Amino acid sequence: MKALVTGGAGFIGSHLIDALLERGWEVVCVDDLSIGIRENIAHLRESASFTFYEQDICDMEKMDIIFTRERANYVFHLAANSDIQAGSENPTIEYRNTYTTTFNLLECMRRHDVKKLFFASTSAVYGDAEGMDLVEGSCRLEPVSYYGGAKMGAEAMISAYSYMNRFSSLVFRFPNVIGPRLTHGVVFDFLRKLREDNTRLQILGDGTQSKPYMHVRDLVRGIMLFVIDKNTGEGVTTYNIGVESQTTVTHIADVVCAAMGLANVKYEYTGGRSGWRGDVPTFSYDLSKIHAAGWRAEFTSDEAVKTTMREVVSCKR
Amino acid sequence: MKALVTGGAGFIGSHLIDALLERGWEVVCVDDLSIGIRENIAHLRESASFTFYEQDICDMEKMDIIFTRERANYVFHLAANSDIQAGSENPTIEYRNTYTTTFNLLECMRRHDVKKLFFASTSAVYGDAEGMDLVEGSCRLEPVSYYGGAKMGAEAMISAYSYMNRFSSLVFRFPNVIGPRLTHGVVFDFLRKLREDNTRLQILGDGTQSKPYMHVRDLVRGIMLFVIDKNTGEGVTTYNIGVESQTTVTHIADVVCAAMGLANVKYEYTGGRSGWRGDVPTFSYDLSKIHAAGWRAEFTSDEAVKTTMREVVSCKR
Repeated sequence: MKALVTGGAGFIGSHLIDALLERGWEVVCVDDLSIGIRENIAHLRESASFTFYEQDICDMEKMDIIFTRERANYVFHLAANSDIQAGSENPTIEYRNTYTTTFNLLECMRRHDVKKLFFASTSAVYGDAEGMDLVEGSCRLEPVSYYGGAKMGAEAMISAYSYMNRFSSLVFRFPNVIGPRLTHGVVFDFLRKLREDNTRLQILGDGTQSKPYMHVRDLVRGIMLFVIDKNTGEGVTTYNIGVESQTTVTHIADVVCAAMGLANVKYEYTGGRSGWRGDVPTFSYDLSKIHAAGWRAEFTSDEAVKTTMREVVSCKR
Repeated sequence: MKALVTGGAGFIGSHLIDALLERGWEVVCVDDLSIGIRENIAHLRESASFTFYEQDICDMEKMDIIFTRERANYVFHLAANSDIQAGSENPTIEYRNTYTTTFNLLECMRRHDVKKLFFASTSAVYGDAEGMDLVEGSCRLEPVSYYGGAKMGAEAMISAYSYMNRFSSLVFRFPNVIGPRLTHGVVFDFLRKLREDNTRLQILGDGTQSKPYMHVRDLVRGIMLFVIDKNTGEGVTTYNIGVESQTTVTHIADVVCAAMGLANVKYEYTGGRSGWRGDVPTFSYDLSKIHAAGWRAEFTSDEAVKTTMREVVSCKR
């Protein structure tokens, strides 16, 4: 099998590529290196099964050439603006990097007769649905961030293309994912801030925001399980993927400080229920569907945070 | 109040503009005349309250200038590729004319601090959900046409923008709408075909496809009721709007033939459950929410078809 992985030089994409190569796939990585970095795929340079294109997916002509040349039979679309907070200040980033990239890939798949798609969606499609039962396909979808809006729009186009062209599409709605090679998000931010000044730490919001954090190895194991071992058939199959447990922002701060060997760091809370407008302060969604299908996370949310910190501090990639 | 109406030279848009002007609003019409026609707004040329821009909404710079100059306080976004069948052959039309137009308008509203939006969405966001209860906000959204996919993506971005910028957005999911100035759809097609050859009529599908048809006057009355008399508040308020009754394609053919005074027209069915891939053969959705809010259609589906035919044949505009 030959995979075209977009965002393959990014945090999750590069871990997925490692897993695909391990299972004997050929991999074509497409990344514009706007968020992804060369370092994440540097160890693959010598692999005969690996090809890298530094390419913006919004350039349809160039993408057409890559599809013609590479003839992949599975597209894994992980390219997006993964920094929700940045997108909240400039929505055009989401229009371009999250929505338009998806549309262009779907159109390339249609033109080049590629039938299989994996799409990295997000819990953000549900919006701020505190206390609701977030089950795939039977609850409201009211995103409160441009990122969530663009991802939900991408899911909608995947639904249409899959029906019209008999694609078999697998959509995972990711929670916060952490692990080595992380490039953004609260764990990353705390590390960065403490490396600059290890006496104090600014924490957005009141620190009680609580979310499920999932380790990237659990996620990649989930993707591989469904891509390789399960036949999801024609149409779109959507799963929430994640962990049932949650971790508060203050607990993350504690773990980061401990891993860095810091004591007496002064926490400075900016206050308020959310870190920023468009941030969803507490979140938990229903995982029965993916559990019933035979996947379950190995790390709890707290374990994922602790393990990530250990790996990042010890520079494990 | 000053309204900016996109797609204002189109079928529904031009009827809406008539109603707004009647109620004393100032109206700025933006239309690229790709589907809309000058004839639909020709009668407004002398009105001091009416301004027309022949403008493509995808040109963000030009739209910025119009927003700066006009300072409207309500945007009615009706521009889209309203010809689903055409979009099914070239999805880029939907990406551009249905999705991108919406994104650009939202971005203009954000930059120019316009807080009120009406958006023309569609029953197509539900996809082919035969036998399901289609209630706003609590059922699956799995569009099967690029048009439905783009409209659902537009709704998702409206959700995000409304939350982030405290817009008050009113979204109506339209069924098939008919009436004078109609430019596409089955009623229009039958008329056109019979004017070319009044001895036979090709009917896509098996003729049993059954859908609710709503008269444009009922729709515009609904829009005006919620825009003027109801305060929908911050965030997005979504309504299915339509009629509970339905009309089959064969019945429409009968009514068109009768209105044109034709007998013995030979119906030639192309066969199959759907007219084309992406067409939803039967459809009915829950209208309790809009009924409870105080609106109800005056015309049944059959009456809407019959009235439209009478109006169109007698050239009423």
